[in-house]
Amino acid sequence: MDEMVDKVYEFAGFPNPARVRIALAEKGLSDRVEFVSVNVPAGEHKRPDFLAKNPFGAVPVLELEDGTTIAECTAITEYFDHLAGEPMLTGRTPKERATIHMMQRRAESGLLDAVAAYFHHATPGLGPDIEDYQCAEWGTHQRSRAADGMRYIDGVLAKSPYVAGNDFSMADITVFAGLAFADAASVEIPAECENLLAWRDRISQRPSIKGE
Amino acid sequence: MDEMVDKVYEFAGFPNPARVRIALAEKGLSDRVEFVSVNVPAGEHKRPDFLAKNPFGAVPVLELEDGTTIAECTAITEYFDHLAGEPMLTGRTPKERATIHMMQRRAESGLLDAVAAYFHHATPGLGPDIEDYQCAEWGTHQRSRAADGMRYIDGVLAKSPYVAGNDFSMADITVFAGLAFADAASVEIPAECENLLAWRDRISQRPSIKGE
Repeated sequence: MDEMVDKVYEFAGFPNPARVRIALAEKGLSDRVEFVSVNVPAGEHKRPDFLAKNPFGAVPVLELEDGTTIAECTAITEYFDHLAGEPMLTGRTPKERATIHMMQRRAESGLLDAVAAYFHHATPGLGPDIEDYQCAEWGTHQRSRAADGMRYIDGVLAKSPYVAGNDFSMADITVFAGLAFADAASVEIPAECENLLAWRDRISQRPSIKGE
Repeated sequence: MDEMVDKVYEFAGFPNPARVRIALAEKGLSDRVEFVSVNVPAGEHKRPDFLAKNPFGAVPVLELEDGTTIAECTAITEYFDHLAGEPMLTGRTPKERATIHMMQRRAESGLLDAVAAYFHHATPGLGPDIEDYQCAEWGTHQRSRAADGMRYIDGVLAKSPYVAGNDFSMADITVFAGLAFADAASVEIPAECENLLAWRDRISQRPSIKGE
């Protein structure tokens, strides 16, 4: 009988897949999964085979040995975080869990999703075959929201070493992916965000991120 | 010394505050917190006093006895779910946790946030003093996304009794709040969504919701 392993459908180098790769590396679980490449630039994530795994047509997707499919980075991170390994990326106490989920959500909504909306709506995005609805006005507004999000996180990092407090967490991973997406979409980090820039330099030295 | 309790800043009857109220009632923790009303229709959630608690200007916000403030419904739910009480609303096993977080996020993004975007962008929303940026085209598109979200959840409920499987969870609460917001914003549930409508009738009988 073949050894069965969990599969992660993704596209290497893209921001949301990077979130799961970093989480796996932090937990020492990267070797436990098989990465399966989905050609996102070619629109493979919008085709029936893949939509059967995630009807919302987005990577990454975790497929468990029993066939269960899990989409959404926070959900996949929750899975691996509670499966095995250290450090805990989603917290241990109720207060830690709450703080990390709050900051993760703020980073997602105010930075990563804002950059994504700008990219998909106010630039050619992944091209006319894939971008079936675009609203340029909305996308342009999201670009300024992303800059606001960076300034907010910069303020948080003026007071604590990591995005959700004293320890590296899922919230840091979301911010890191958001900034990587911002680079790719040419959304600049405001120069005054010195805490954010210093945090990014520091975070980039982590083996989980350096190895990316 | 006065007894100190956690405070929940909210506005009764609004969809996001309802999510936390339902979670608290499910866990038997409603008496453990003090509800503090923030006059959202009057814009109190956008004033400096409240922005100090949540710079994103939204209710609900949980304020712990030590002054820590927690925004975002998922984060507040994680807090109370791990504090005490049954049932667990965010799951126990890695797979349960992942499934609930995935479905919660899908319900939030595809239904609740879509209805909210329609309400705030394509209708007068909370009025010109509060809605400082509106994009009607985007809002109108989100109305159709909300209907798609309802159809998706209807399909999920054709196969399982609750949104994230065999047990009531945080994901059900998000869908319920999304439908309540849809009612308030006159976004109709498509008539063919029979599973969703039956689930809603059933859910409405839970003491945590009936008491709302």
